[in-house]
Amino acid sequence: MRLVTVARGDQEIAAIDTPSGVIALQDLAPDLPASILGVVQGGPAILDRIAKALSEGTATPLAADSFTLKAPIPRPTKNIFCVGKNYVEHAKEFQDSGFDQSSGGQEVPDLPIVFTKAPTSVIGTGADVIAAHDADGTLDYEGELGVVIGRGGRGISKAAAYDHVFGYTVINDITARQAQNAHKQWFLGKSADTFCPMGPALVTADEVGDVTSLRLVTVVNGEKRQDAVVSDLIFDIPTIIATISKAITLEPGDIIATGTPVGVALGFKPPKYLKPGDEVTVEISRIGVLRNRIV
Amino acid sequence: MRLVTVARGDQEIAAIDTPSGVIALQDLAPDLPASILGVVQGGPAILDRIAKALSEGTATPLAADSFTLKAPIPRPTKNIFCVGKNYVEHAKEFQDSGFDQSSGGQEVPDLPIVFTKAPTSVIGTGADVIAAHDADGTLDYEGELGVVIGRGGRGISKAAAYDHVFGYTVINDITARQAQNAHKQWFLGKSADTFCPMGPALVTADEVGDVTSLRLVTVVNGEKRQDAVVSDLIFDIPTIIATISKAITLEPGDIIATGTPVGVALGFKPPKYLKPGDEVTVEISRIGVLRNRIV
Repeated sequence: MRLVTVARGDQEIAAIDTPSGVIALQDLAPDLPASILGVVQGGPAILDRIAKALSEGTATPLAADSFTLKAPIPRPTKNIFCVGKNYVEHAKEFQDSGFDQSSGGQEVPDLPIVFTKAPTSVIGTGADVIAAHDADGTLDYEGELGVVIGRGGRGISKAAAYDHVFGYTVINDITARQAQNAHKQWFLGKSADTFCPMGPALVTADEVGDVTSLRLVTVVNGEKRQDAVVSDLIFDIPTIIATISKAITLEPGDIIATGTPVGVALGFKPPKYLKPGDEVTVEISRIGVLRNRIV
Repeated sequence: MRLVTVARGDQEIAAIDTPSGVIALQDLAPDLPASILGVVQGGPAILDRIAKALSEGTATPLAADSFTLKAPIPRPTKNIFCVGKNYVEHAKEFQDSGFDQSSGGQEVPDLPIVFTKAPTSVIGTGADVIAAHDADGTLDYEGELGVVIGRGGRGISKAAAYDHVFGYTVINDITARQAQNAHKQWFLGKSADTFCPMGPALVTADEVGDVTSLRLVTVVNGEKRQDAVVSDLIFDIPTIIATISKAITLEPGDIIATGTPVGVALGFKPPKYLKPGDEVTVEISRIGVLRNRIV
């Protein structure tokens, strides 16, 4: 199931992206949740109801020009969890850049590095990233697989981790490199408004199937910059979920950005930082294309 | 005005702590907000209505044994912003500890270091901190002044910063030192469930007056460990607000922990880590005493 959040006028509503068009959940049944967060919090029973209503086939898709896509969860209820340096070749390029004062001189980490991005940084596909929020002109992209938690919990084992995954989305962990470096902890350089493009859809885990086979490709102005498969993660999804939930209760709708592969702007000599007018797409197979322009 | 959140049975309600007792806001007027977050979001008009209703003096205080105190904002709408190494002598003790791999070798930072704590870590005064959430036995306290944002905004100038402060509270930034160090970025070591005691009250800025004169004292099992005044901050409150809001929109109810002074457990040789049975109090003048037991 491909869930999307659409804006119609001032309203943001949950919808489902089907082969025959985008159908608002509340057109399927008026008492279905108005938001994807509500669907996630509702658990499998809500998904079953959506599937049943869809199979009855009575709802009319939205006219294609009547809405725009937003981030699937436009306003997370807490910061987005993010894993740093989680692909070997990216860990090396970041270390080599001299911009990584803050990870203790280790090239490849021996434990997951976790930081956060503010929920106010989230935008959807098609929305603009504001370059002026990096006053130093060191704006970078980081294409990443996003994991959305379904069933919450603390002390989730690796073996049980996938049972707690609702689905997957695409995230671009936009970063102001100079601020990331100068402020030591990464939060400020990662959390400016518009720095967390997310979307286009939240695809349920059953529809994704084997997540480790997903391929991630980031393209800037038509030039391919990142190309990796999820199986290349240093710390896989079960390890990430077990690590975060060891002493932190995960909740339905929590979002985890799993890390970015080699090929960020900072890794080139000289760096290929983003500038106004650039277009970045992050595509992950079976999820879709997240497209944002820098302004 | 001293705002508190109290629990009566399963309900959490906003109340005001007056010389004659704790009065539920909805006993003052049924249409006042049910939560302190609602009061903060309502702005000065709500505070005026509370003051007027109080002056009419018709509401009955809650019986002292009918409620317990919770954190003033028990569930923030995003992670708590936290400033690291923001008192000179603490910056030195942390650097000397060898547990600060992640701040680039600088003793005293030249820019604010900002990280976050998950909203699920918040507990109130009187609640227990769970020592087992630090598997390494390196549990530490950090008494801090908490700033609660009133009017939101981005690009807030230092000159205007205090106009955006709703009030102040006390925070204990409980930290698992080994996890803070081993995971490089500080988030995981700071965000375990129960690791953010907050309270006992949220005191409005007008009632606090000159915040820089507030004195912070942390006591463990009767032994004074920290004793500082807010004017000793390396980066003062206007600088912190201007720094965070430079590219991040601050919102009503956002919480900023401003940093801890010298005297944390890690600073002693050998470290005086917290253990089950310990009691930590953090007292800030004109705000109150935040008291928590380690279990």
